[in-house]
Amino acid sequence: MPEIPEMREHFANLFTRPLPAHVTASETTLGGRPALELRPAASGVAGEDVLLYLHGGGFVVGSARATAHLPAELLRHLDGRAVSLDYRLAPEHPFPAAPDDCLAAYRELLDSGADPRRLVLAGDSAGAMLAVVTMLRARDEGLPMPAAAVLFSPVADLTLGGTSVRTKDGVDPIFTPADLGWFFERYLDGAEAAAPGASPLFADLAGLPPLLIQAGSSELLLDDAVRLAGRAAADEVTVTLEVAARQPHVFQHDGTSAEAVAALERAGRFLSTRLHDEKAAA
Amino acid sequence: MPEIPEMREHFANLFTRPLPAHVTASETTLGGRPALELRPAASGVAGEDVLLYLHGGGFVVGSARATAHLPAELLRHLDGRAVSLDYRLAPEHPFPAAPDDCLAAYRELLDSGADPRRLVLAGDSAGAMLAVVTMLRARDEGLPMPAAAVLFSPVADLTLGGTSVRTKDGVDPIFTPADLGWFFERYLDGAEAAAPGASPLFADLAGLPPLLIQAGSSELLLDDAVRLAGRAAADEVTVTLEVAARQPHVFQHDGTSAEAVAALERAGRFLSTRLHDEKAAA
Repeated sequence: MPEIPEMREHFANLFTRPLPAHVTASETTLGGRPALELRPAASGVAGEDVLLYLHGGGFVVGSARATAHLPAELLRHLDGRAVSLDYRLAPEHPFPAAPDDCLAAYRELLDSGADPRRLVLAGDSAGAMLAVVTMLRARDEGLPMPAAAVLFSPVADLTLGGTSVRTKDGVDPIFTPADLGWFFERYLDGAEAAAPGASPLFADLAGLPPLLIQAGSSELLLDDAVRLAGRAAADEVTVTLEVAARQPHVFQHDGTSAEAVAALERAGRFLSTRLHDEKAAA
Repeated sequence: MPEIPEMREHFANLFTRPLPAHVTASETTLGGRPALELRPAASGVAGEDVLLYLHGGGFVVGSARATAHLPAELLRHLDGRAVSLDYRLAPEHPFPAAPDDCLAAYRELLDSGADPRRLVLAGDSAGAMLAVVTMLRARDEGLPMPAAAVLFSPVADLTLGGTSVRTKDGVDPIFTPADLGWFFERYLDGAEAAAPGASPLFADLAGLPPLLIQAGSSELLLDDAVRLAGRAAADEVTVTLEVAARQPHVFQHDGTSAEAVAALERAGRFLSTRLHDEKAAA
């Protein structure tokens, strides 16, 4: 493995896309952490919708900016703003630093007046897992749930227990099982991988809002997505799982392929439908 | 268990709904079996889309007419006709009579000029399983695949191997595990439940067209839906799984609940999107 600063630079170079012209970005803070706020570039007052976005990067790399084109695309379907959070990264700040930061951000959004019926969560890869963990911790602390969440290629099982970790080894164009293990070890820093607070696949998911999970069939992490959907369904959560054939991990990053465009469009519509339902019910 | 003629009458009384005003129904035959053809009531020439619908009823009860309101709702989103098939029922005609009839129907549609790019399959419960089995047999015989399929609460595993068969026992308002076992035994009549030709969960699903699977979280058969989605994804099939919280088996039957209306709308849009894609690609 290369040195961590080099990995971070490589990831940033590889995944950072220009932000689409329909948004303007500004630096802010949320829950005591730096964050990137995205608003519609067209002037006029944006509505009350808030999307909290948690980026991917295996808990070790990535940033609020690097994958901000994903929340920017989702924002097309919302009437409000998105905030992409720079939660603390491992190995300098292992578990539970990142979940702590995400919960603090979620709490600050609520404390500053966000209507949970107008609040949605989304994330990719490790960030999608953090979105689930954040909702579980919020639920356990009696905070209201957001209206919905979108999970792009979620990590759900830090024990690497999915069958696809073996069956898609060599098919996945991005990761080997050893890569995933390396990231998860940096994050866990000795904490138990199977603990429900670490791996949401082993948690009680009851009470979560409607979830949309998207994954590619070529991923080592395919079964994390499938099993997370199954776990949510077993716990009476309304859940949609979409698997795109022969697509890699977080295939939405490539915002130009037909599969990415269609998946982001569906994800945005999923959120706007849920926000609309909540507004109608309010 | 009551006598089989009484069960069939009871099922017909319980599930037969008036057909919506936008369709006209006429009796026909397909693959040597009776069938019900649904066409738009509004005059004018219907397009070339064809939906082959396979009803539920545990392979023992049900009919082309009893659940014809489901293909009728889907037809709102299509430009053409739907055909609901009266495949042979167990115990008089056990496995593989029903799959034979369904394949014959599919083959006749193709032989009579249906464009597979304009052809879609759908079914509920046992009929959803027959839709999958029909596609697998068609694939194995070198027939073209339909453009897409919609599976409402599919049966996928005649061994009753899903965890939800136990965990949702008492939650499922319709079935006990013994009920399911009784139906499957009538159908199998001694054939091996785990054979890939009988239970598509154990088959190679590679090459199937995009699938939409819908289920309720209160079903004994929830894990059939979840595992079938996982199996399809593992085999590089584009698949969407939608689980509606606290909904029963084939909750779409009740065409008036918010959940049923929304699920049928999504299913219809799924089919029309796929048919549109195929037309655009043609």
